Amino acid sequence: MILVLKENVTEQQVSSFAKQFEAQGLVCHVSTGTQTTIMGLVGDTSKIDIDDVRANPLVADVKRVTEPYKAANRKFHPADTVVSFAGVKIGGPYFAVMAGPCSVETETQIIGVAESVKRSGATVLRGGAFKPRTSPYAFQGLHSEGLRLLSLAKAATGLPIVTEIMNPAHLDLFDDVDVIQVGARNMQNFELLKELGHCKKPILLKRGLANTIEEFLMSAEYIMAGGNNQVILCERGIRTYETFTRNTLDLSAVPILKHLSHLPVIVDPSHATGIPWLVEPLSKAAIAAGADGLMIEVHNDPPHALSDGAQSLTPEQFDAVMHSVKRQLEFEGRNMVCTLKN
Amino acid sequence: MILVLKENVTEQQVSSFAKQFEAQGLVCHVSTGTQTTIMGLVGDTSKIDIDDVRANPLVADVKRVTEPYKAANRKFHPADTVVSFAGVKIGGPYFAVMAGPCSVETETQIIGVAESVKRSGATVLRGGAFKPRTSPYAFQGLHSEGLRLLSLAKAATGLPIVTEIMNPAHLDLFDDVDVIQVGARNMQNFELLKELGHCKKPILLKRGLANTIEEFLMSAEYIMAGGNNQVILCERGIRTYETFTRNTLDLSAVPILKHLSHLPVIVDPSHATGIPWLVEPLSKAAIAAGADGLMIEVHNDPPHALSDGAQSLTPEQFDAVMHSVKRQLEFEGRNMVCTLKN
Amino acid sequence: MILVLKENVTEQQVSSFAKQFEAQGLVCHVSTGTQTTIMGLVGDTSKIDIDDVRANPLVADVKRVTEPYKAANRKFHPADTVVSFAGVKIGGPYFAVMAGPCSVETETQIIGVAESVKRSGATVLRGGAFKPRTSPYAFQGLHSEGLRLLSLAKAATGLPIVTEIMNPAHLDLFDDVDVIQVGARNMQNFELLKELGHCKKPILLKRGLANTIEEFLMSAEYIMAGGNNQVILCERGIRTYETFTRNTLDLSAVPILKHLSHLPVIVDPSHATGIPWLVEPLSKAAIAAGADGLMIEVHNDPPHALSDGAQSLTPEQFDAVMHSVKRQLEFEGRNMVCTLKN
Amino acid sequence: MILVLKENVTEQQVSSFAKQFEAQGLVCHVSTGTQTTIMGLVGDTSKIDIDDVRANPLVADVKRVTEPYKAANRKFHPADTVVSFAGVKIGGPYFAVMAGPCSVETETQIIGVAESVKRSGATVLRGGAFKPRTSPYAFQGLHSEGLRLLSLAKAATGLPIVTEIMNPAHLDLFDDVDVIQVGARNMQNFELLKELGHCKKPILLKRGLANTIEEFLMSAEYIMAGGNNQVILCERGIRTYETFTRNTLDLSAVPILKHLSHLPVIVDPSHATGIPWLVEPLSKAAIAAGADGLMIEVHNDPPHALSDGAQSLTPEQFDAVMHSVKRQLEFEGRNMVCTLKN
Repeated sequence: MILVLKENVTEQQVSSFAKQFEAQGLVCHVSTGTQTTIMGLVGDTSKIDIDDVRANPLVADVKRVTEPYKAANRKFHPADTVVSFAGVKIGGPYFAVMAGPCSVETETQIIGVAESVKRSGATVLRGGAFKPRTSPYAFQGLHSEGLRLLSLAKAATGLPIVTEIMNPAHLDLFDDVDVIQVGARNMQNFELLKELGHCKKPILLKRGLANTIEEFLMSAEYIMAGGNNQVILCERGIRTYETFTRNTLDLSAVPILKHLSHLPVIVDPSHATGIPWLVEPLSKAAIAAGADGLMIEVHNDPPHALSDGAQSLTPEQFDAVMHSVKRQLEFEGRNMVCTLKN
Repeated sequence: MILVLKENVTEQQVSSFAKQFEAQGLVCHVSTGTQTTIMGLVGDTSKIDIDDVRANPLVADVKRVTEPYKAANRKFHPADTVVSFAGVKIGGPYFAVMAGPCSVETETQIIGVAESVKRSGATVLRGGAFKPRTSPYAFQGLHSEGLRLLSLAKAATGLPIVTEIMNPAHLDLFDDVDVIQVGARNMQNFELLKELGHCKKPILLKRGLANTIEEFLMSAEYIMAGGNNQVILCERGIRTYETFTRNTLDLSAVPILKHLSHLPVIVDPSHATGIPWLVEPLSKAAIAAGADGLMIEVHNDPPHALSDGAQSLTPEQFDAVMHSVKRQLEFEGRNMVCTLKN
Repeated sequence: MILVLKENVTEQQVSSFAKQFEAQGLVCHVSTGTQTTIMGLVGDTSKIDIDDVRANPLVADVKRVTEPYKAANRKFHPADTVVSFAGVKIGGPYFAVMAGPCSVETETQIIGVAESVKRSGATVLRGGAFKPRTSPYAFQGLHSEGLRLLSLAKAATGLPIVTEIMNPAHLDLFDDVDVIQVGARNMQNFELLKELGHCKKPILLKRGLANTIEEFLMSAEYIMAGGNNQVILCERGIRTYETFTRNTLDLSAVPILKHLSHLPVIVDPSHATGIPWLVEPLSKAAIAAGADGLMIEVHNDPPHALSDGAQSLTPEQFDAVMHSVKRQLEFEGRNMVCTLKN
Repeated sequence: MILVLKENVTEQQVSSFAKQFEAQGLVCHVSTGTQTTIMGLVGDTSKIDIDDVRANPLVADVKRVTEPYKAANRKFHPADTVVSFAGVKIGGPYFAVMAGPCSVETETQIIGVAESVKRSGATVLRGGAFKPRTSPYAFQGLHSEGLRLLSLAKAATGLPIVTEIMNPAHLDLFDDVDVIQVGARNMQNFELLKELGHCKKPILLKRGLANTIEEFLMSAEYIMAGGNNQVILCERGIRTYETFTRNTLDLSAVPILKHLSHLPVIVDPSHATGIPWLVEPLSKAAIAAGADGLMIEVHNDPPHALSDGAQSLTPEQFDAVMHSVKRQLEFEGRNMVCTLKN
């Protein structure tokens, strides 16, 4: 950590300031120029809050040299993490496609979609039981009944399931869920992240609408700091001034996250854009950029979907996308593994 | 709600589509042009999710004519809401200043700051016991011990207290708290909002870092839909490309929120900018723009603050700001009322 | 164009308002609901400024149904435009790679880089003679001398050249230039665009840092309205809150621009990110998303580059990227054609 | 300037790197830690392009300690600059209100508006003759005829005039113009800025839609580097994700610009928001934040304005705003001076 001190600090102030850091086990290098004094802190600075340092009236500016995340940092864990669940692997050479409706609606719907996306090659079934909706008057999901229907679809097809949690108090209901999803709006719901750090299931963490890559990794760090290293990162678009798409998919985030971290990274082109005809080109682009998986919305009857039908593909459209995805994965030498239970 | 249909829809499709809406009690006006057919829905459209309508393959575009929020809407509640608690009023002619440290640290600190901000004219004491921090390794607040210290400061000074909640499970601990704050990162933590809708205390709802004014009002609506109408809105800066300030304070939001809604609106210049010398000019600007209150960070020893000291004022600096604030309030004809208990 | 009128308009106001539009040759459909009156305008609305309509005190909201761009619109020109110059084609099945230094510095440098990028497979040489720099004290380019050196490099290698213009008054100097580039900061320098509309050379138009896709197409329309249809669009990153990369590359813009327009679309991953190791994954992603070309910065000695060396590849790094690009183009069935003159 | 070097640099590399800077007259302090080496450059670093330094493969990160602007920097020019023209002063204690239509349309219109805004207390007449429009098919302004009509209005009322230039080639036409405006879209049209640096008239420089405060000051520096110190800065809203207003007015920029620079700063609430009823509260807020002036759109017949009528006030509405503005200026102890010629 590098501190630029203010112009008029005295030698005594600097030395007493340095002692504060040395008391915390850090080594402190001071370099005095004609205009500015620079202080370099060496050691484990992860516990130092950069804003607290900035608060000191002696300090003009502060800069971290080392990343504030440790468990998620590739520097300390060079090999790719491979997350495994129910016969599916994701990360390293393994690629996964998670597909299904935004909301679970009926038994017929979810089993129908599950069978159809399985036929097209998806390896995980997605579907929302708890739905974060902007309006309190909109459909909020089937809750525990939705989770029950997902289990039926899992039993029927052997596809593992991923679904969103919104409240730590609901964790008991997620027993049969294979991957627990944290939605974009809850990326910095730190109470939820801490709770999931103590759980044994893989967590799919979606990037917040206005969160930086560093904040995203710090939220993964919250989960990992609790002992759960099975975190899958998901880029799903960020909020910008552009209004043509619902959000702006930040595909640069894929190679950056994979450079900074060993965790698998997937892309959700459906939520990122809200436009069905963008799913195929952006799925291909995500694979080319190095993504480890895709999450795609598929609904058997998009016009009558109870939520977010606008961005859903029909099973036929999804099949066409998967044709293209599989060709591209072969070209890239990526594998999809899924040892289905039935 | 206005629907622009796609170019090639048939008359039969339009009429069957219209019937779906009529079945929900809406009146449906169809206007057919040479290129486009337009459908206008009249009635209570608040339960219709605009994205679901957009999903219909017949629909090219949709536009809401009436706002999707009802309880928070000034159209249905023209008079300003005045939120009252512990002798303080906010909204309508009443203005309130909430001041105190980012984090509660020690009994001496919080009572010291409380006495000092009271002397300068603050009417509410703020202080964090549960702190949302980007890093899991940073100080997370004193939790229930922090709430206990806040109660001591309240007893010592008579100032009502406002403090942040991060988990619905903690609600029982907030018995002696006068106003419960929902932080920016939890503005769309809908599970928390729903829980607070059933509580009897005023809620201070902060705008999310990347949330629109409409989303902000919809989150207030979540609380109000549960029966709690005592919501105070707080503009605290939004995330933009500008890096000089921590966030960009959106002061236009103040007159807009007051135009669209009857709820009181306050401004937090400390978190919005992260720069102490901006607090005075932006506090004055907030009052001039019509704000009903201010939330300002004050710490007796900013350089040693355990969190967010960077943006805190010293008690002396706060006193100078309050001198200016009180002069401005007098000019604007706004009142601060606070019937302190001791 | 659809106009939502205010709640309390009278029938007479509506009919007199409608007459204004009918006088301009438009057909006007009026639909009166219980709360709102909707007016639909049919005909050529491209001359109507949407803000002017919004200004009318009768109007609550306006919405365009048809795009405001015509020459650039794929609806009126379904086939892909192929831009041709000096043996190179771009658009439709043809792909082009433009590579070279940010700034032209010396004869040795530009000829050296030109020979090296040609060997690696680039089909166009890029290099800046007029440089838009944030600081007036930074190197501003070699100006006409830079253009002379580019001509030498073109003569030596046969590669056509693309270089930026900043002032319509300089147009005479660009005689030997094959493609004239308009930089991101000048995307809405309408005086420059108009001038280039009268010129016979292909124009490479870069998207502005904060411009929407529609504004981007409207700027292309400025050039095309003057009679020059040879416009190449270039996505080069937009400004967002994320600070890890210099800008956020908006790859969704590629399939969207190709959907809305027939013009060729290329991607500049160097300027978009400012990070050399992101050029390869994002070049691959751009091709997968459907881009018609790439613009990549290559410098023989990045550390001593006079401008923007940070993002430049060395010739060796570029060669590795081109290896990967050519493999990907083959997979996608795209061709690079370049009938070099020598 | 502070350079953080990469982890594995050798002593020899550091010393040879330091020599490069010493050759440019800078003093170079090196501080070697266990993990990182830090280099501090002292002296005039304004000619060093930070991106060029970042490009060096030895460099991990760079940070400026001193601002890159000099002429505009308050550090080197502590007193407020007062810009004077035609009996009007702006800056320091002096406040100015510039009002008028977006576009000059007819003699009757511009003289009518000029007389009316003068009666209400405006001290400068604004009006566009060259209009930057997103669409090539929209009204582009009356050009030299518009300038002629502005002169007539100036002669009739004595109000000095401010109007926008879009092309350096038009400068000769601006003889009778008192203040030349550079629009937001041309803030980084460096060729135009350089030209205006050689001219003797005050320049009103508007902040670009996506430009940082530092970039804004660097554009002022371009003008000042040419010898013209009469620059007025204008905050007019930045582009964010919020869609309720046309742009997001960044009022924090006012006290920040006045802190960093000695130049006068004005605010344009009309263009920032596009909503007439926001002009009054935001004008008041701008004054409270320390602005030195306002620019407000007034049109005698907003519904029939040829451009941007949506945000224009009627003369009656403007009169009400001015009533409030004058009261606020008196409260703040600011003066409006205008020695009208007739």
